[in-house]
Amino acid sequence: MKLPALLLVARIAQGAIPGLMPLPMKVEEVAGRLVIDSGFTVASTGATNARLDAAMKRLSDRISRETGIPLHKGTNRPALVVECKTNSPQTPELGEDESYRLDITARQATLSAATTTGALRGLETFAQLVVPGADGFEAPGVHIEDKPRFAWRGLMLDVSRHWMPVETVKRNLDAMAAVKLNVFHWHLSDDQGFRVESKRHPRLQELGSDGNFYTQNQIRDVVAYAADRGIRVIPELDMPGHMTAWFVGYPELASAPGPYAIERKWGVFAPALDPTRPEAYTFLEDVIGEMAALFPDRYFHIGGDELDDAQWKASPSIQAFERQHGMKSSAELQAWFNARVQAILKKHGKTLVGWDEILSPELSSDAVIQSWRGPDSLAEASRRGYRGILSFGYYLDHMLPAKTYYLNDPPAGLGGEACMWTEYASSESVDSRIWPAMAAIAERFWSPREVRDIDSMYRRMARMSRELEWLGLKHREDRVERLSGNEPNRRLYVLAGVSDATGIEVRRDARHYTSLVPLNRFVDAVAPESENARALEAMAARRNGTDIEALRVSFEQWSMNDTGNRFPEELTPLSKNLSATGAIGLEALRYLESGKAPPAGWIETQRRTLDGFEKPTAEVVLAAVRPVRILLEALNQ
Amino acid sequence: MKLPALLLVARIAQGAIPGLMPLPMKVEEVAGRLVIDSGFTVASTGATNARLDAAMKRLSDRISRETGIPLHKGTNRPALVVECKTNSPQTPELGEDESYRLDITARQATLSAATTTGALRGLETFAQLVVPGADGFEAPGVHIEDKPRFAWRGLMLDVSRHWMPVETVKRNLDAMAAVKLNVFHWHLSDDQGFRVESKRHPRLQELGSDGNFYTQNQIRDVVAYAADRGIRVIPELDMPGHMTAWFVGYPELASAPGPYAIERKWGVFAPALDPTRPEAYTFLEDVIGEMAALFPDRYFHIGGDELDDAQWKASPSIQAFERQHGMKSSAELQAWFNARVQAILKKHGKTLVGWDEILSPELSSDAVIQSWRGPDSLAEASRRGYRGILSFGYYLDHMLPAKTYYLNDPPAGLGGEACMWTEYASSESVDSRIWPAMAAIAERFWSPREVRDIDSMYRRMARMSRELEWLGLKHREDRVERLSGNEPNRRLYVLAGVSDATGIEVRRDARHYTSLVPLNRFVDAVAPESENARALEAMAARRNGTDIEALRVSFEQWSMNDTGNRFPEELTPLSKNLSATGAIGLEALRYLESGKAPPAGWIETQRRTLDGFEKPTAEVVLAAVRPVRILLEALNQ
Repeated sequence: MKLPALLLVARIAQGAIPGLMPLPMKVEEVAGRLVIDSGFTVASTGATNARLDAAMKRLSDRISRETGIPLHKGTNRPALVVECKTNSPQTPELGEDESYRLDITARQATLSAATTTGALRGLETFAQLVVPGADGFEAPGVHIEDKPRFAWRGLMLDVSRHWMPVETVKRNLDAMAAVKLNVFHWHLSDDQGFRVESKRHPRLQELGSDGNFYTQNQIRDVVAYAADRGIRVIPELDMPGHMTAWFVGYPELASAPGPYAIERKWGVFAPALDPTRPEAYTFLEDVIGEMAALFPDRYFHIGGDELDDAQWKASPSIQAFERQHGMKSSAELQAWFNARVQAILKKHGKTLVGWDEILSPELSSDAVIQSWRGPDSLAEASRRGYRGILSFGYYLDHMLPAKTYYLNDPPAGLGGEACMWTEYASSESVDSRIWPAMAAIAERFWSPREVRDIDSMYRRMARMSRELEWLGLKHREDRVERLSGNEPNRRLYVLAGVSDATGIEVRRDARHYTSLVPLNRFVDAVAPESENARALEAMAARRNGTDIEALRVSFEQWSMNDTGNRFPEELTPLSKNLSATGAIGLEALRYLESGKAPPAGWIETQRRTLDGFEKPTAEVVLAAVRPVRILLEALNQ
Repeated sequence: MKLPALLLVARIAQGAIPGLMPLPMKVEEVAGRLVIDSGFTVASTGATNARLDAAMKRLSDRISRETGIPLHKGTNRPALVVECKTNSPQTPELGEDESYRLDITARQATLSAATTTGALRGLETFAQLVVPGADGFEAPGVHIEDKPRFAWRGLMLDVSRHWMPVETVKRNLDAMAAVKLNVFHWHLSDDQGFRVESKRHPRLQELGSDGNFYTQNQIRDVVAYAADRGIRVIPELDMPGHMTAWFVGYPELASAPGPYAIERKWGVFAPALDPTRPEAYTFLEDVIGEMAALFPDRYFHIGGDELDDAQWKASPSIQAFERQHGMKSSAELQAWFNARVQAILKKHGKTLVGWDEILSPELSSDAVIQSWRGPDSLAEASRRGYRGILSFGYYLDHMLPAKTYYLNDPPAGLGGEACMWTEYASSESVDSRIWPAMAAIAERFWSPREVRDIDSMYRRMARMSRELEWLGLKHREDRVERLSGNEPNRRLYVLAGVSDATGIEVRRDARHYTSLVPLNRFVDAVAPESENARALEAMAARRNGTDIEALRVSFEQWSMNDTGNRFPEELTPLSKNLSATGAIGLEALRYLESGKAPPAGWIETQRRTLDGFEKPTAEVVLAAVRPVRILLEALNQ
């Protein structure tokens, strides 16, 4: 039987099929289960190449690691055979055939794909299917047909505002591959840092990065690492705004005299490139030329967002230039600049990508528009004949619930890209800001549009979250006991487990942050969306006997968690609120069990109390409130 | 004030001084606290060398990692100044001066040491003193004078029975350095594998290791890594028994005709070197010569334990040899063999170390005896003029409570060595079998004999356990959800958190284990001594109001933990026992709170039930029983 999405979700919930993410286009159950033991091997019969070989080796290593079974050289027939029709180009390209078929029987598994890239995607599906069985590990009998809904499925990472070392980038590429993402958009320069080595103009990184930049060798290494995993790498050099870090070494590029220093604050800043000076284009020609050689992808991102035109307005020469060319606004000057940069890119065989501000008649129609401001600008771009990718609604630094991102559906177009801006994330915390929510977004980009069951998504995302840990992601790393100097502190875990870290909207107003403020507080060690609270919400909605008992244990734990705590001072209100929430939860359980209605106004009073508790404190939100709210609603019915 | 051990322990318990491990010889509190911020730097003023520089860099990196504060190049005076009188030899040696003094004031910290090695030890103490303060991180004002009680403080790791990759060895060296251990005894060959490359006789590793061996370059790298951390590396090539892996490639060395295969089972096996053939000594001369060049330490371990003399007894030529030389037993032949090996070692400038079976009049008196059989043999060795190190009572693979190891005091002599034999530990689980108990043993080897307060040890060991995690140790890694195929499974954590994994004594009888059986079950993911159970024991002994409430929450959680579980089948009895233990605990709390005596025989009945629950099941012991037992005792008074 071919399972439609809803039936498939039901079979996954029953455990008949492991919780795949992203969900394949078609899944059929087949009798039998393939045993995974120490003789497990993968072999390829069709087109083969170093990328496929490496991917097969990674699969074996991963299965060995995840199952704890050391793999010995199998002498039997291979457990998994990969039949690949043609070799994909060595460097992944937009629009490749990524489809695959996977057949697993008790005897053998067969993965068929038209291209290497399709095979890479299928290997990831196979890895997700390995589960413990009655005697060791196994993969269920299935027939899967799969291909992506969108061709451009990306993650943008800002490495300028907080530095992200190569190992951070690499482990995120591993995670991206695991959920079939195929574009890594590398935001390499901004006011706070220029992060890539230029040999032609070395003061860019020497003075613009505090020593935190990627050498050209490192870039080549990361690009190859991504290509191995079927991921394209798109560099972004943001211009003509967001360029302060360039001006530290080359103040003459700016529209106002220097000197300039690396920006330490967050926001939009005045410094902007002077687009009227011919020398600027010589310089850009050099840098773009170097980067074009370094990044083999045909697409190149020039940013173009959030230009503050104060310097342009204040510059007599720029104003004179505008008048002389009949330009009526800074926007027209920026459009003219973009067109010139586009011409430079073309010379190097590159297609321009930019944020939606770049949309203007001067732009030739092969440009790709990345919309961060909303679906309207994407529709407008499409109307004018540009291809578009949606990022609005996928801003990971807002740290919204995964379901919010998940239900945001890209319009017809190339696809979408989630964005991780890093004002409030360091290399230590960034994994926990991207994952596991990014896995849900990856499903939105890959799976059929009608796959949108929230409960199923959360269930599978929780499993994927653990899968990613085996791949080396650090999003579930425990760091809260740092706050008690490595002294055991179970109460701190209880509090952290039912708190949601807030995103940029709350944090930018909470205190004076700069790039020099360490991100080492409670909020930085807490996940954006408490998995624990979500489990309790499900129990509160179901309310069978076991659920009630489990809720009671949690509420009791909360209600006593504040007593004798050794928490950092800023957590005092949060901790008191948790204990009060526990007490309300216990009282609500008593009413529900006794069947006796609470006194008039009681529910309303508790609700208002919980409203207060849901306001951010210490830059976190008390997720514990949510299951208790559900009980109050049940009492109200 | 100079704090005697007990007073010091009290000040640590109050949090006035962080919980150092091993405890220094003398600690004085000093007014003020040194702020640790992003300007933190270390500088050296005295003798300096690459090892000290590297150690100072590691300290900075570690402080940055543990505090989450990115360190910028400080422009102020250094926060920590290291004054080192003389450079230690590049390769650490037995008996170096490892003493240091550490003074921390609000203004600056000063570390003074006679040697580089002493400075290395002091840097580790400084790292342990960094704790969160009112505003960021800080180190308390102290004056510390410290030096080790014993000169030989070791860990032996068996890499033959389960293969341990270089990264596993390196992270354990990091942990050893953190607790001031100074000898890494590398058990490189045994029946189950010959793990080091020989260029002269390459079939040793080619046929004797399944491809899992260290290249000579890797050995040099590890030896240098250890030396950097002030750790000596002693290689062990076990002979004339425990040599099956040698005979796979070189059957002619054995006392009976081949062919031989790598041993897959655990135990003591018949194959033994034929010590009567001159060719054996030519071969050993080659291999020892190679290894002597590879391992710079002056000491070289030849094993010598557990010889099964069946092959010798069955060999007419060996029996004839014995008669001809007037030997009355296999023991005399082994003694003669040891003396010849000792002569070979001497030629290469090496001093012989061996297990206590080697003790015989033929052995020249510079040999070092490592006692695994008991203190008596060590006393005997000492009586005969040999230097000794104690390993009896420090067998980590027995997985005893840390306090048992801790209270085992070495007699006068060189010191002690804990032993990690790896029949039941893979590279994945080995960290959790060594740590944190090894930290308690390290304190036994370093700190004054009178430091033996168990509660203080456990409190500080729990803190050290987290410190070690920051250093990359994997002993606290979560792996239990592997058993539910990465599906969230909180009940499994609850069960794992109050279970103790058993050691070799239980496991060897529990099922048929070989080196090919994966160590990926519940027992392999569980720690040898539940930290959680210990915390609950302390609460049960104290029984203040908060304790009672916390115990109740745990008991309720246990009592419902079995309902609707999704556990591997072998855990069914364990899980039921946990729930029953929770129920007994709840009932005991009710009696304690009501002040009403339980009915006659009730306590005795519960005790017997708990006795049954404490028998190993699924190769683990239910640690949850212990706090409940304490409550029963309280009721009985």
